Amino acid sequence: MTTQPILFTPDEIVQLRQEVGRETLMGQAIAKNIAVTDAFMSLPLEVPGHGDGGSYEHNRHKDNYTYMNLAGRLFVITQEQKYADFVIALLEEYADKYLELGFQVQKNTNPTGRIFHQILNEHGWLLFTSIAYSCVSSQMTEAQRQRIIDRVFMPMIEMSTEKYAHRFDHIHNHGVWAVAAVGACAVAIGKPEYLDMAVYGKNRAECSGFLDQVSNLFAPSGYYLEGPYYSRFTIRPLVLLAEIIHRHMPAVDIYNYKQGVVGNTVQALLATAYPNGVFPAMNDASQSMSIADAGVQVAVSIYGAHYALDDNILGMAKIQGGVWMHPCGLQVSRAYEKAASEREIGLPYWPSMELSEGPNGDQGAQGFVRMQDKSGDVSQLVMNYGMHGMGHGHFDTLGITLFNRGHEVLREYGFGRWVNVEPKFGGRYLPENPSYARQTVAHNSVTIDQTCQNYFDVERADSVHGLPHFFQVDDENIKGMSAFANHHYDGFAMQRSVFLLNLDELEAPLLIDLYRLEGEGEHQYDYSHQYSGQIIRTNFAYETFKEVNTLGDDAGYQHLWKMAAGQANDTALVSWLQDNSYNTWLGTSSNNNGEVIFTRSGANDPSFNLRSEPAFMLRSHGESTLFASVLETHGYFNEEFEQSVNARGQVSNIRVIGHNEVGSAVEITTQRSVVTLLVSNQAHVTENTVNELTINEQTFNWTGYYSVKVNTQSQEII
Amino acid sequence: MTTQPILFTPDEIVQLRQEVGRETLMGQAIAKNIAVTDAFMSLPLEVPGHGDGGSYEHNRHKDNYTYMNLAGRLFVITQEQKYADFVIALLEEYADKYLELGFQVQKNTNPTGRIFHQILNEHGWLLFTSIAYSCVSSQMTEAQRQRIIDRVFMPMIEMSTEKYAHRFDHIHNHGVWAVAAVGACAVAIGKPEYLDMAVYGKNRAECSGFLDQVSNLFAPSGYYLEGPYYSRFTIRPLVLLAEIIHRHMPAVDIYNYKQGVVGNTVQALLATAYPNGVFPAMNDASQSMSIADAGVQVAVSIYGAHYALDDNILGMAKIQGGVWMHPCGLQVSRAYEKAASEREIGLPYWPSMELSEGPNGDQGAQGFVRMQDKSGDVSQLVMNYGMHGMGHGHFDTLGITLFNRGHEVLREYGFGRWVNVEPKFGGRYLPENPSYARQTVAHNSVTIDQTCQNYFDVERADSVHGLPHFFQVDDENIKGMSAFANHHYDGFAMQRSVFLLNLDELEAPLLIDLYRLEGEGEHQYDYSHQYSGQIIRTNFAYETFKEVNTLGDDAGYQHLWKMAAGQANDTALVSWLQDNSYNTWLGTSSNNNGEVIFTRSGANDPSFNLRSEPAFMLRSHGESTLFASVLETHGYFNEEFEQSVNARGQVSNIRVIGHNEVGSAVEITTQRSVVTLLVSNQAHVTENTVNELTINEQTFNWTGYYSVKVNTQSQEII
Repeated sequence: MTTQPILFTPDEIVQLRQEVGRETLMGQAIAKNIAVTDAFMSLPLEVPGHGDGGSYEHNRHKDNYTYMNLAGRLFVITQEQKYADFVIALLEEYADKYLELGFQVQKNTNPTGRIFHQILNEHGWLLFTSIAYSCVSSQMTEAQRQRIIDRVFMPMIEMSTEKYAHRFDHIHNHGVWAVAAVGACAVAIGKPEYLDMAVYGKNRAECSGFLDQVSNLFAPSGYYLEGPYYSRFTIRPLVLLAEIIHRHMPAVDIYNYKQGVVGNTVQALLATAYPNGVFPAMNDASQSMSIADAGVQVAVSIYGAHYALDDNILGMAKIQGGVWMHPCGLQVSRAYEKAASEREIGLPYWPSMELSEGPNGDQGAQGFVRMQDKSGDVSQLVMNYGMHGMGHGHFDTLGITLFNRGHEVLREYGFGRWVNVEPKFGGRYLPENPSYARQTVAHNSVTIDQTCQNYFDVERADSVHGLPHFFQVDDENIKGMSAFANHHYDGFAMQRSVFLLNLDELEAPLLIDLYRLEGEGEHQYDYSHQYSGQIIRTNFAYETFKEVNTLGDDAGYQHLWKMAAGQANDTALVSWLQDNSYNTWLGTSSNNNGEVIFTRSGANDPSFNLRSEPAFMLRSHGESTLFASVLETHGYFNEEFEQSVNARGQVSNIRVIGHNEVGSAVEITTQRSVVTLLVSNQAHVTENTVNELTINEQTFNWTGYYSVKVNTQSQEII
Repeated sequence: MTTQPILFTPDEIVQLRQEVGRETLMGQAIAKNIAVTDAFMSLPLEVPGHGDGGSYEHNRHKDNYTYMNLAGRLFVITQEQKYADFVIALLEEYADKYLELGFQVQKNTNPTGRIFHQILNEHGWLLFTSIAYSCVSSQMTEAQRQRIIDRVFMPMIEMSTEKYAHRFDHIHNHGVWAVAAVGACAVAIGKPEYLDMAVYGKNRAECSGFLDQVSNLFAPSGYYLEGPYYSRFTIRPLVLLAEIIHRHMPAVDIYNYKQGVVGNTVQALLATAYPNGVFPAMNDASQSMSIADAGVQVAVSIYGAHYALDDNILGMAKIQGGVWMHPCGLQVSRAYEKAASEREIGLPYWPSMELSEGPNGDQGAQGFVRMQDKSGDVSQLVMNYGMHGMGHGHFDTLGITLFNRGHEVLREYGFGRWVNVEPKFGGRYLPENPSYARQTVAHNSVTIDQTCQNYFDVERADSVHGLPHFFQVDDENIKGMSAFANHHYDGFAMQRSVFLLNLDELEAPLLIDLYRLEGEGEHQYDYSHQYSGQIIRTNFAYETFKEVNTLGDDAGYQHLWKMAAGQANDTALVSWLQDNSYNTWLGTSSNNNGEVIFTRSGANDPSFNLRSEPAFMLRSHGESTLFASVLETHGYFNEEFEQSVNARGQVSNIRVIGHNEVGSAVEITTQRSVVTLLVSNQAHVTENTVNELTINEQTFNWTGYYSVKVNTQSQEII
């Protein structure tokens, strides 16, 4: 029977030990882990029965495995016996009780475990506890070890691989947890046949097991179709099992498997994050999940050790404020220590990236465009033109978000859920998640005739996807992307083209947005913008209502209060203050019947489950229609110090010159420049296509996907 | 003609110079001032014409004096000639232009200056520029000096003391700016007769000038009746002129004048601040003005140098992150350096304090009660039972706020104003300030029959005040205060008694609130609570409306949307999540017809001037009525890490046993304790009075103002 830590070699342990007490990322990680583990160890040991998700019992079992995992590794690193004693004593209690607990009664689609309400959590317990056990088993008697194996580990492995065999090695994020747990335990208790089963599946002829999971769960780009919130949850068992395979089945050469698919998935996850490390809330997600998540910390350490250790990885480690307490984390810590002695480590400035979707990468993509302003601040523009995220998917194809100056400016509502807040429906998804958060109108997109994309039919949504048109990010002064969504509303084709443009007179990159809809007959188009903060000014008159009603009856409109509205036939200007910055939006359409409607979420919300958040939409009725807008971030406000500068911004107008099947033409005017932007509307265009667009007898020519011309007046000397 | 810096001696300058480049508070202050001054000096010199408040011209003149003030002192400290050259060159430009500018056209009650729209700002220019001039005049020729004096300083002094003589030395916060400016300039240009005039007034027989201002503008407690937001604005010229008098008229012995009235006013200002340094928004005020304000920084340095240098002053210097660049600041910096080498400097834990109001301290008071929890977090409870703050006063006598865990829990809306945000009515007060922010219903108080206290009559409000009943803060486990307001509604007497109670089973001090109203006939009483965050649960059914109307037509009710309501005849429970903490409120009244109404501000707000903020009120109809409630802060939620603990709290009930003219009796039940609280309702009671309260044939006896009994069950061993 082996008694070796499964994640450490003796030499690595010596090197980690040298970090104790140092001011490095690893030294700080060890110190922090000692503090929290010692605090937990000062409580009486407790192995409760089972409880519901979010219950005291649930949280206690979770704490137990979390701190066993830390204590096991701390024993290895510090050689302090108390850590081993704690793990062994708690394992003994589990050995006493585990088999006495019957399986819980099943309440959702996930089968139940003995200690958790779903085996997903039981697999978490098994994975982390197996690692802990391997760290301390040298301190146990043979009889102690055998008792733990017989009364806990083997029953759990059997539960996973036999009782719930159909859920064990399937291609699903829960399956990754299952195989990682069984694989880790197999090595820890010296039963390599189960590692083999985890890696290759129970039946090698079927598509199953870890290698097939990493090959099929993610697109070739590494993107996971449920979005980063779920990806970061899957990434932890994925990289942990990869590291175990690397150490115990070196022949698999796991880190080079399929052109480095493991590294690819990590990189794709990290590439979605905003500059402050928070993940955009794509599909069901909280607004605050970030790279500081413990699983992402493990992934960054493993990625840094096995793939690349550049400034972006170091910048992410800086945001994380630590590294994984493991030899991989030590490599990142050492690289950081060396780099920081030579220069300031900044926030990551990840390259702009288009992450394709689908098993073959041909089912649309998610686009992430980044541009730095003169002060170094990074603007990030995100557009979804990929697949629907299955049951967690939001109906927001062609939806965008914009981030700059430390916050989301065009915002994603996130999920309708107060995660782990027990009095809020046990912390589970709320009825307002489908009825509001997942609806098209809750996003920065266009809703046609007050209906949701794909008519809220998940199956229909899963069968279609966006069509990438271009993704052009080589020009430092203009970066953009464009895509079509031609199957999301019956009888409509849609195209959105979004750009970040650097102009000398602007403080931040200017968002330019062209949203084109082709349909027959007249329709209502609602071009929505979710913002945060206080309206500062508009350039049109509006009425604030004395009595407030909902904007509609379904498709999310029943949750929106119609607070105010005004006609805006010319270009509408809406300016608002968010934290310390002003934002000014100017928008128009090719129709002449614009109306701006100010809304607030929270109607038809009988239990105050929704957050009360403002939005505005430009509503236009017409046949084929082009919406065009710009969003300028400018100025500075500090209430505490009563400072305000540049509260009005520089952009004065945006005008639709025209649009047809060939292209769209718009003109943007600032205090100093006139910008003419021409965008191809034809799917077949390439970088070399010569386009000719005729509008009102005026002809525009350009080569490639788009053309931008900036005419700047020479600055007058006053 | 003198050419000496008016605020420094040669020896002090040598000592300050030694701080350059050091990591002390003073070293950091010098480094920061060098950075911002160098940045401003890199711009071309500019002396514009005059503009409106908040205009470019206004801000430029303000920047000019701010950076001249810094550059003058930096020249003295660093001896770098560029700082003197900058000040001299800019002064020369003012000498060229100042007399060419006519006086602006007057737009408000404040007379206009030549460069600013009100002389208040012109006095700021004169004060700071005089200090700068005194620092660099040694580097000027006699002709240069004389030109500045003839073309700028003397015309300004004449403007203050002759043209606007009636505004010069009067007892008003603007008068303090006027005398400080003239006094500083007098010393700088060697005309002591004007310092004399500033200190004693133009006519010694009248009550006027600085000494009378400091004696009469503040209550004996040092409290300024317009509140800390205005007090911190007045404190800067006050302490600057005090320091000038200290150095140039030592015979006045200014720091000991009238038992140290200067130090008293500073201390009273600092004693209002929340533990994080932010001032409660009493009367018209922003929610974020704090001790980091530049004027308060000067005041803390002067207070530290001349009065006391204890841990609270060091804690405040820590929040301020610097000291005033002056020998007084150096003393604070040195004390901080010494203390920090010996121990961790924590946040200030200012003692609980009752600040009396009125020239004789007999017109009510403002109460500040503080209590620390086991983790060291300070709860602060504020109650207003003093005077109305004149034109800036809010109609909120007996209103309270509660602060803990880094934020206001029961909140003050603050003013209806976006200060310095030019597109929002020039940054001035908005129509919604009187129509909402100053109304009783906008505060944590009780509104009777949907009318405002004093019927929104400022004159009437200025003629009445609260009556202190008790302020008891010696018991570490219960601290409380009680006051009457018997003249704020015709025919009604009101009493509010609030306590912070430490119970072993609670994480934070429990707020207990008894609000008693005596009136004849049946009335509507609205007991309001302004909160922030998301409703988590209630213990009663409520209806959220499909169509939303305002709660009323005036007295602020026209700005409140009635979002939801429910009957709550027994004790109502409302629990909400704010940032990382849960709050659970349980409230009841002595009537049996309670209704809880959930509101949101923002109705009848045609320009989106109001913030959209939630509140709830317990509405009760009856004759004399006692409201009783508790507020428990508990648990922890972290969305990013998906952690939630203790979401429900420990308090289970509060019950009114009874109340009459003798006293009020309530009973609070927690999971472990039953608390019986008896409070005297009689104004004549002293600490020694023996009280006997009979309710439903049950008799309660206690001595003094109140009695609290806690019966805790011995904890069962499970």
